[in-house]
Amino acid sequence: MRLVSFIKNGESRIGLRREDDILDLSIIAPELPTDFVALLEAGPDAMAAAAAAGEKAGDDAIVSPEGLTYAPLIGRPPKIICIGRNYAAHAREGGVEPPEYPEIFYRGATSLVGHNQPILRPLCSDKLDYEAELVAIVGKRARHVSKEDALSVVAGYSIFNEGTLRDYQRKSSQWTIGKNFDDTGAFGPEFVSADELPLGAHGLSIQTRLNGKVMQDANTRDFIFPVDDLIVKLTECMTLEPGDIIITGTPAGVGYARNPPVFMKAGDVCEVEIEGVGTLRNPIENEKA
Amino acid sequence: MRLVSFIKNGESRIGLRREDDILDLSIIAPELPTDFVALLEAGPDAMAAAAAAGEKAGDDAIVSPEGLTYAPLIGRPPKIICIGRNYAAHAREGGVEPPEYPEIFYRGATSLVGHNQPILRPLCSDKLDYEAELVAIVGKRARHVSKEDALSVVAGYSIFNEGTLRDYQRKSSQWTIGKNFDDTGAFGPEFVSADELPLGAHGLSIQTRLNGKVMQDANTRDFIFPVDDLIVKLTECMTLEPGDIIITGTPAGVGYARNPPVFMKAGDVCEVEIEGVGTLRNPIENEKA
Repeated sequence: MRLVSFIKNGESRIGLRREDDILDLSIIAPELPTDFVALLEAGPDAMAAAAAAGEKAGDDAIVSPEGLTYAPLIGRPPKIICIGRNYAAHAREGGVEPPEYPEIFYRGATSLVGHNQPILRPLCSDKLDYEAELVAIVGKRARHVSKEDALSVVAGYSIFNEGTLRDYQRKSSQWTIGKNFDDTGAFGPEFVSADELPLGAHGLSIQTRLNGKVMQDANTRDFIFPVDDLIVKLTECMTLEPGDIIITGTPAGVGYARNPPVFMKAGDVCEVEIEGVGTLRNPIENEKA
Repeated sequence: MRLVSFIKNGESRIGLRREDDILDLSIIAPELPTDFVALLEAGPDAMAAAAAAGEKAGDDAIVSPEGLTYAPLIGRPPKIICIGRNYAAHAREGGVEPPEYPEIFYRGATSLVGHNQPILRPLCSDKLDYEAELVAIVGKRARHVSKEDALSVVAGYSIFNEGTLRDYQRKSSQWTIGKNFDDTGAFGPEFVSADELPLGAHGLSIQTRLNGKVMQDANTRDFIFPVDDLIVKLTECMTLEPGDIIITGTPAGVGYARNPPVFMKAGDVCEVEIEGVGTLRNPIENEKA
């Protein structure tokens, strides 16, 4: 099953993908929550009800994907957990050895932006870089999860472009501020339920294209810490909740590590494609003064 | 005005302090939101309505403070923004020079715990340390705020004990994981409206006592980055929202930097007192296996 979030009459709605169409879930299944976190909290039965409603829905609930205004896939995740340096080649292009424990930091919801919406280059920095990442979306509360049970925590997957201001990332030892500018974290377009992908979203190609040119080109089989391992390590320390997202780290090829460096600027278009998950596309615009 | 959050019939409620009593806001002002973030979003008029309701309330709305089960003051802040190394003496006890830009990292809501509730020492680490901190609570949306306007963003202040697992904090370059264990971030007991304190909560003594012994003893006048400066720097990058909290950093005297080091263990009681704001008290318990 594939779901999107879109704006209709100023409110965020959930859409169900049926072939090339999107069905408005608030029309075909009005008994289900319209908030994505609440839908995940409602659990597998609610997801099954959404899928069943899609199969019997008429054409009156169809929203054209072309005219859709996408919202961040989940607008208010309880936690937005990011993993740094989870591909060895990316750690090395940054001048460090692959880590023995994940680098973990958080983003806030004010940094999120939807598919097709502009990623903003802020007034105070021109060091805006892309980072292609697979997202694992938590479907149930979990603490102290074993490796065998870890993937049962994941309801589905999506895509993130973890836009980063490299100079702010390095203003102190902690990267958080460089990762939390408004409208820099693109998230979507689709929630892809875990059953549609290989276990742990293993072995998927992941690619960034900037203005059509391939900048990152790797495979999720190269994770230092695969999704199940991340969940074991995180739940040793904390409770994961429905709607929490785990952004699993970016491969080699980021802009700042290139010679000469490449940063994103107004007019650019950045696409992140993950095999079987989809393509997240965002134009770049300047923040207005 | 002083507000608390407490649990009644399994639900979080807001209480208004009147002298030594707490009044249940859902009884004296049923038209006001029962969620703390929603109350802050409702703005100064809602706060004034709460205060006015308190003045004319009868004794039937009184909840005994003794029997109160405190919840984290705000259970689900949109962002929990922590500042590291904001007192020069604390930076130096950690072996580094005072920073030129704030060290910023986030906590998640699953790490929060209320006044009088146990801070948990987790199964996987015995390196649980205290950190006394002043909290600035955001009252309105703000981006690109000038230094002159910065303090108008703050609705009030509170206290945080930023319980940290020192070994996990240093498992990688990013501190976030060591700051996000369940039930380690004590927050409360009271929201103290900004008008009850010196401008910017400047010049307040801040003290930690572990089992009655003074461990940290400093003053908010020693901030490297005072509250207004933090708001200027944060809003250069991101939108602050009502209910966001800014945890302003801890002074010298933390346990790990002592000789010999001191860590908190089951049976300990940790108190953080800030002049004019109150005293946040928490017993320490072991996480149950």
